[in-house]
Amino acid sequence: MELSGRLSNLGTETAFAVSADAAVFGAKGNKIYPFHLGDIDIRTPINIIDAAYRAMLDGKTGYNPAAGIPQLREILANHIGSSRGVTYKIENVAIQPGGKPVIGKFLNAVMNAGDGVLYPNPGYPIYESQINYLGGVSLPYGYVTTKVGFRIDRDQVESQINEKTRIFIYNNFQNPLGAESDEDEMKWVADLALKHNLWVLSDEAYFNIRYSGKSKSIVSIPGMIDRTVILHTFSKTYAMTGWRLGAAIGPKYVIDAISKLNVNDESCTNHFIQYAGIEAIAGDQSGAKEILNALRARRDALVEELSTVDGVVVVKPNTTFYLFPDVTEIYNRMNSKSLEEFRLSTLYKTGVSFCTREHFGKTLAGEEKKFIRFAYSGISVEMIREGVAKLKAYWYSK
Amino acid sequence: MELSGRLSNLGTETAFAVSADAAVFGAKGNKIYPFHLGDIDIRTPINIIDAAYRAMLDGKTGYNPAAGIPQLREILANHIGSSRGVTYKIENVAIQPGGKPVIGKFLNAVMNAGDGVLYPNPGYPIYESQINYLGGVSLPYGYVTTKVGFRIDRDQVESQINEKTRIFIYNNFQNPLGAESDEDEMKWVADLALKHNLWVLSDEAYFNIRYSGKSKSIVSIPGMIDRTVILHTFSKTYAMTGWRLGAAIGPKYVIDAISKLNVNDESCTNHFIQYAGIEAIAGDQSGAKEILNALRARRDALVEELSTVDGVVVVKPNTTFYLFPDVTEIYNRMNSKSLEEFRLSTLYKTGVSFCTREHFGKTLAGEEKKFIRFAYSGISVEMIREGVAKLKAYWYSK
Repeated sequence: MELSGRLSNLGTETAFAVSADAAVFGAKGNKIYPFHLGDIDIRTPINIIDAAYRAMLDGKTGYNPAAGIPQLREILANHIGSSRGVTYKIENVAIQPGGKPVIGKFLNAVMNAGDGVLYPNPGYPIYESQINYLGGVSLPYGYVTTKVGFRIDRDQVESQINEKTRIFIYNNFQNPLGAESDEDEMKWVADLALKHNLWVLSDEAYFNIRYSGKSKSIVSIPGMIDRTVILHTFSKTYAMTGWRLGAAIGPKYVIDAISKLNVNDESCTNHFIQYAGIEAIAGDQSGAKEILNALRARRDALVEELSTVDGVVVVKPNTTFYLFPDVTEIYNRMNSKSLEEFRLSTLYKTGVSFCTREHFGKTLAGEEKKFIRFAYSGISVEMIREGVAKLKAYWYSK
Repeated sequence: MELSGRLSNLGTETAFAVSADAAVFGAKGNKIYPFHLGDIDIRTPINIIDAAYRAMLDGKTGYNPAAGIPQLREILANHIGSSRGVTYKIENVAIQPGGKPVIGKFLNAVMNAGDGVLYPNPGYPIYESQINYLGGVSLPYGYVTTKVGFRIDRDQVESQINEKTRIFIYNNFQNPLGAESDEDEMKWVADLALKHNLWVLSDEAYFNIRYSGKSKSIVSIPGMIDRTVILHTFSKTYAMTGWRLGAAIGPKYVIDAISKLNVNDESCTNHFIQYAGIEAIAGDQSGAKEILNALRARRDALVEELSTVDGVVVVKPNTTFYLFPDVTEIYNRMNSKSLEEFRLSTLYKTGVSFCTREHFGKTLAGEEKKFIRFAYSGISVEMIREGVAKLKAYWYSK
């Protein structure tokens, strides 16, 4: 029996193969230093867990509306609005089973086949996969390295825009780069969207994962709220990755379309976990603070350790739980044949497991530097220090 | 800003409008008899709730594999296999956030644009919506009324088959009809699929909601397991509609494709509720029995009451929690202009709320009888008797 032809355009997250490699190597009795995991190894705060349990006991076990329970939609409208300096109402919010579903549903709702979609590369691989799967034209844009970190390659963006370009995917607080826009860059993205009449998907999954300063959303720039859909998730802030709770937030008529897609796809998001979502936003925040403090300690340890590794160039991001160090010098010194060979030889010699630039999109023309990605959401400070020591021992041996 | 053109092909469940009408009428102080609800007004059994809570406390709050946790996939493979008289392995099961997602993912995985898809009408409206949305050719087939209940209109099915017809959607234990195939009909469906090389989506959401006899799956017929994907859900058997827990079960290569769609759409199904799924299948079954007993008592009361209504023709189904009575005589006697007018006038005069045939697809050529659908999953025996008495009083008044 044949499968559909459209499946040939569907991508995936190749990072799962990295987890599998680490698991196989670990199963042989080797100690693994898991820098590949984008998951958080901290349990969800107990007040949030208990809120879900109370809701279950209270019989919130039947269907709920496709767009979510009104109480959560309302509290989220207020929360997202006040933290972004704009006004959202309940009609602007559609609850989703996670942040990720917003990508596919947004593209279904606003993209026609043949439309050009600009998206970050390196970037979250599902953007490209869904654009291609749904018949869009994928237009990857890269980043340039500066002394203060990564910046969007503006020339590359502008050179790809034509009359068929309709969407800009903007992942400020960027995975895998850990980068974020300064005021000038965000203003430039907004001007571009306004000038070329682009929709913007603003992936704000890491909006609250920041260690100093204050996050800003592109919706706060005049004119942008009318053309932007925010991807919101509870996953990172509250260590709720496995709960699958997120939301699309945007103009009413797009949210109506997304809610209609909900009716067709999964009916609705789990009922009782939405009450846990209310507790997460409105309840005691000490759990979220502990999570952020743990992540900060790990970031500091990892940056400190990596800074002592000769040949590693790394900046200290204020956001996300990723580092994206330039390891070109080490890569060359070790006569590596490919990033994949570099990754695997390091894993097998040290137990240190990480993703590389290639797990976040195809290498763009002109890219010469070699980057790898460290996630520090699933590894302790002690293991971070131990792992980097192992890296040094191996990388220096050649 | 423009939405995508593809949205114009997306349907919805118009039954939600019936709920809304009832809610508005009820909010004015009127007593509502909710025969429109496809939800269950019974809380999930406590052992299942407690299993979810234990899993949360145990830290099952992070990501899990796209196809689900291996333990649930394995127990489900065994459970579905043994109850259907076939053998499934873990590789044949992809956990989903509900039964409904299986419809869209199955079509994405096996249907090309232009492929013909046979599906029941009256039937669950999402079949037609997803077929059209994804570019298929929707081929509705109806039912004929017999003394023992509804039977698939075989002539209508066969007249629509041509070389582009690739899929048969089979909803034995049928919503809204409450019908099920006898041996001869199921054999005929299987022969048809084998002869024309069709994929079969076997929607078995109500497989365990039966009051006497034994459910049979089409996968038990030789040759069918290789071309059939089962839509399975925990929603009905365990009153878990709001949990969003289900599965696609079928040949490994289709399940692999569906799992890849999971990676792109929602990453994975909620982690800790899958442990509740294990408890549902392997744990104490007294909760499921109580649910079925409550539904049986309601069915018996509703059939008994409706049988006393002059002009209502109803059969007593052994499965689902729906009745689909023929009310043609009353409809005509009341000079109704449309089923919608008949529904609303009855609601506003009696408080009795129900869906009609028109909420389950467009009326097919040659249909003359008028049907309405009663669900008894969300209404007590007492309210059933009171509601039908109200119906009599109003319907007899004309």
